[in-house]
Amino acid sequence: MPRNLRITRIVVTHFSFVVNDLGPEEHLGFDQVYRPGYRLDQDGSILTIETDAGITGEVPGSIDRRDALYMLGRNPLERDTIWHDLKRAQRGWMNAPNGAIDMALWDIAGKLYGAPIHELLGGGGQGRMKLPCYASTYHGDENGGLTRPEDYGDFALACRDRLGYSAFKIHGWVGGPIGREVDAVLAIRRAVGDSMALMLDPAGAFRTFDDVLRVGRACDEANYFWYEDAFRGGGLSQSAHAKLREFIKTPLLMGEHIRGLEPKADLITARATDYVRANSYTDGGITGVMKLAALAEANGLDVELHGGSLAHRHCMASMRNSNWYELGLVHPLVNANKPPIYGDPKWIDLLESVDSKGCLDVPTGPGLGVPLDWDWISAHRTGEVVYEGE
Amino acid sequence: MPRNLRITRIVVTHFSFVVNDLGPEEHLGFDQVYRPGYRLDQDGSILTIETDAGITGEVPGSIDRRDALYMLGRNPLERDTIWHDLKRAQRGWMNAPNGAIDMALWDIAGKLYGAPIHELLGGGGQGRMKLPCYASTYHGDENGGLTRPEDYGDFALACRDRLGYSAFKIHGWVGGPIGREVDAVLAIRRAVGDSMALMLDPAGAFRTFDDVLRVGRACDEANYFWYEDAFRGGGLSQSAHAKLREFIKTPLLMGEHIRGLEPKADLITARATDYVRANSYTDGGITGVMKLAALAEANGLDVELHGGSLAHRHCMASMRNSNWYELGLVHPLVNANKPPIYGDPKWIDLLESVDSKGCLDVPTGPGLGVPLDWDWISAHRTGEVVYEGE
Repeated sequence: MPRNLRITRIVVTHFSFVVNDLGPEEHLGFDQVYRPGYRLDQDGSILTIETDAGITGEVPGSIDRRDALYMLGRNPLERDTIWHDLKRAQRGWMNAPNGAIDMALWDIAGKLYGAPIHELLGGGGQGRMKLPCYASTYHGDENGGLTRPEDYGDFALACRDRLGYSAFKIHGWVGGPIGREVDAVLAIRRAVGDSMALMLDPAGAFRTFDDVLRVGRACDEANYFWYEDAFRGGGLSQSAHAKLREFIKTPLLMGEHIRGLEPKADLITARATDYVRANSYTDGGITGVMKLAALAEANGLDVELHGGSLAHRHCMASMRNSNWYELGLVHPLVNANKPPIYGDPKWIDLLESVDSKGCLDVPTGPGLGVPLDWDWISAHRTGEVVYEGE
Repeated sequence: MPRNLRITRIVVTHFSFVVNDLGPEEHLGFDQVYRPGYRLDQDGSILTIETDAGITGEVPGSIDRRDALYMLGRNPLERDTIWHDLKRAQRGWMNAPNGAIDMALWDIAGKLYGAPIHELLGGGGQGRMKLPCYASTYHGDENGGLTRPEDYGDFALACRDRLGYSAFKIHGWVGGPIGREVDAVLAIRRAVGDSMALMLDPAGAFRTFDDVLRVGRACDEANYFWYEDAFRGGGLSQSAHAKLREFIKTPLLMGEHIRGLEPKADLITARATDYVRANSYTDGGITGVMKLAALAEANGLDVELHGGSLAHRHCMASMRNSNWYELGLVHPLVNANKPPIYGDPKWIDLLESVDSKGCLDVPTGPGLGVPLDWDWISAHRTGEVVYEGE
């Protein structure tokens, strides 16, 4: 039985900030693209879980009222019981326990033991404390940023030569035409030669199977590291991706849009992916990601984490089978696009956060390991929701 | 090219109401159970989509800001283009287009043509205008409502003898013990003999595979119509259900928690379900449900619609391959648990809404076919959000 800690208070602090030269894609409005002069309002939040031991878990994220009422009074060390209860509560809705809650509980555990989370997970061994990153771009735009195929090639070169990156992933254009996407795939490889790993993520924007196939064959020709979410079907079909696998040689990376252990096990069994996508926010936190790492390992596969976070730095340092940290989204003309919730920008995943070899550090402080900059958060606060026991 | 209609204004009207003797399950708080004296606050909303033709689509539901900005100015008759755009926008999040939007567009089309939606779908033929219902219970409680196995048997008998129902589905207890669940499965069959179709939906509350198997074998013994969502894994695993299929004879009904066409196709291919669950809210509206009906038909399977709504009445009247309308949730001691948003209670899916044979009618008015009771909605309104073109 774990020692007796109790959750006494839960707070969600909302804040807002502005990103310049970024805005909704002009035709449909669902993606964010480079738009010079546009000021995009962005929201964020911090989840804080307080305990009667004076230890507080803090992580970017939120919690709904029902989960919060469930959490109050519980022992934050009983992570696995909580994980399964919250998973059932989210069935048919998020289909995974709220990842931010799990991260906050890991933060509490780390602070209790005075240990960084990767240490609790047995990670951080030889070579694990520097995480190789790929620069992951915004979608293409029609505004002179990432507009022509060679714009991507130029940006990849700049990432390599100016910042040290050894890998580069493009999100292409949402509105076609497909020929430009094919040209971009080839143009980037021509620009960087064999010096970088390249990945492509159309984010489900293509329309037909023929589009998927034409771009996939370009990935083959240009020796891409992976081809991700090509089908318009939302990245949900096993049979479509197993079929695509028969047509092209480039490894597929799937799983971003299906949550948790069981569907990804089925995805692997159906041979519909070659790498396993995992995200601590949508796959049930650090607990969920590490279960996925075990599942992937059991199938001889690697996990590639979706998006960046302190939690992902600890997770990646704690698994053998992962290749790249996703640093994004980035763009040659969009800067300061992340809220500076940590004082030191090296923890914020900006384009220039990497070291000279294009790598990121893993925090060594207790828990998630980096204190939040509450001065900045308070100055940008737009509201808060507090849950307290009776 | 469809005639030129434009969406000019979108409104979400929020309302609240109180249900007596219903409250959160005492141990975890995630399910609603009978709790005498408890007054449960419930929220609801109506989505209204107005056009420049003076025709307005109205349906219970909501819309997010991004989808609303996308919809303004579009032609509401271009349902399939809109459906695919909204599907991509929801990838990785809801993984299906907002069903309420699609229903509102069908309501607009029906009002434009002066035809009920089932007529537009080619439905409503011989025998299709009376929908046989199963009474679908709340979860068991510890408060003297559905507390003992024989309580379920007594309630099933009352549904049959007092109200005409020919089918009855139980949601069992969330907190075990598993022996009581087994006893309930058998007790209901003993009570009603061969006179009713019986279904069981544990809603993922069991803990182990052994629990799943013991209850499944009881369903076999008592000749149940289907066994639904037995595994704790959220109803997401194909391999688990394909394995369960090898152990028991009772047909499985799965798919409530995975959204849309592609994952359900994979579910069928994996032989992980024997009926196909579909829900117009989570599977992309009437358009999504009718695509699923075609998929099921192509595989020799029946669609069973999850939950009740006017949209589901039209859908069920428009497909050959469906057996039962889900009327719920119901309980012997909980009354008036639905907001009376339609003036005539026969459209509201209360326990007593059925005719003497336990069937519901299909609306014959234009569109969804039943006017909303705006007097009641306005009297219970808590707020509204309006989106308008520039």
